[in-house]
Amino acid sequence: MIELVGFDGDDTLWRSEDFFHAAGAEFEAILGQHVTLDDARIHEQLLAAERRNIALFGYGAKGMTLSMIETAIALAGAALTVADIAAIVDIGKRVLAHPVELLPGICAAVAAVAADFRVVLITKGDLFHQERKVRDSGLAALFQRIEIVSEKDPATYRRVLDEVGVAPANFVMVGNSLRSDIAPVLALGGSGVHVPYHVTWAMELDHDADTASPRLLQVDAAAAIPAAVRELAARLRD
Amino acid sequence: MIELVGFDGDDTLWRSEDFFHAAGAEFEAILGQHVTLDDARIHEQLLAAERRNIALFGYGAKGMTLSMIETAIALAGAALTVADIAAIVDIGKRVLAHPVELLPGICAAVAAVAADFRVVLITKGDLFHQERKVRDSGLAALFQRIEIVSEKDPATYRRVLDEVGVAPANFVMVGNSLRSDIAPVLALGGSGVHVPYHVTWAMELDHDADTASPRLLQVDAAAAIPAAVRELAARLRD
Repeated sequence: MIELVGFDGDDTLWRSEDFFHAAGAEFEAILGQHVTLDDARIHEQLLAAERRNIALFGYGAKGMTLSMIETAIALAGAALTVADIAAIVDIGKRVLAHPVELLPGICAAVAAVAADFRVVLITKGDLFHQERKVRDSGLAALFQRIEIVSEKDPATYRRVLDEVGVAPANFVMVGNSLRSDIAPVLALGGSGVHVPYHVTWAMELDHDADTASPRLLQVDAAAAIPAAVRELAARLRD
Repeated sequence: MIELVGFDGDDTLWRSEDFFHAAGAEFEAILGQHVTLDDARIHEQLLAAERRNIALFGYGAKGMTLSMIETAIALAGAALTVADIAAIVDIGKRVLAHPVELLPGICAAVAAVAADFRVVLITKGDLFHQERKVRDSGLAALFQRIEIVSEKDPATYRRVLDEVGVAPANFVMVGNSLRSDIAPVLALGGSGVHVPYHVTWAMELDHDADTASPRLLQVDAAAAIPAAVRELAARLRD
């Protein structure tokens, strides 16, 4: 029996990757003035720096900004100006400051699910930035609990479920990332509703989710989430 | 009756401000090559940038590093070299990577308190960095719960206490910061054990804690914490 439904934050409740994507393009434009690499190669170098630094920085815009500065120094060296560095810091600050834009239909979808089940928000990333987005989203009151975590792996989901006293089999997670929202929950024996977003961060692309699982449904818009959760609940009752 | 004892992390369980302090000194040495300001003025400018950015960055080493880069650009302008910027990024990375050093006697003190009361860790700052320090400290198993929060104000303590079902009057907080660990808990009607650290970050110096409160004890070393908690518990029983 489904007792609890978890929602992801970034790119499930509100736009996020678009802002990071735009930040990457601005970064490439700055570096393009000094290096002969094309944008795709600059992007690769930044991604390599982010992968190298993830164990130290974790996820989020501040770590991305520091990785951008490192990458700029490595690629452009002394050609880099103080104005370029200031512009890169400013890219990061704008990512942190952007207004929260809810995805179409998501408020009604969360409210509909919350009418039938306990709902929690389980979101990954920078604590301070995520808290601000939760606050500005206006959705906080719909959630019984808000968990901001540094990594979404089976151990994290198990801890959250233990704290609220729900068995994984009685849990559905709703999110855009097969890697972070779906695979670890299916691995624990829970269910998932996958709501793909039009752009996915490269570091979220690798996943080992069993996309043929009967405990997984995919929907193409927020409005379809409540029916998908009800369908999964019905399957578990049968 | 005391039911729950909270411990702060940075500068209560393990050294922290020393590393930030050393980072500040390294930053001043880098800038000292390019500007005629003395170290104290450079420090003031950095602190002003950190205050300005706190609403966007929150606490922690990544935000500090970005504020250092901003301050360096503002003070030294075009005199700043790419090598200087790389050195500043490296300062931040070393603060994030430093090994965890427990304060003398703290492991035994937490264990002694945990023998008589439920204990929780309530620590402020960067989620990823705090999680690593908790893991590397070896103390995680002593705590029933670990809360990493972005701000330590009365609302935060109330939320944590609500989640564990403990009234503020039955809670003692142990920490080095009158501003973050003691004042908000006293304001809610709880008790505190203040364990001063030899250096306090400027942004933690302002506080409105009632240092004459009978619900507050100050001790000068970790070894004295268990007796102070028992003394506060006895006062509440009388």
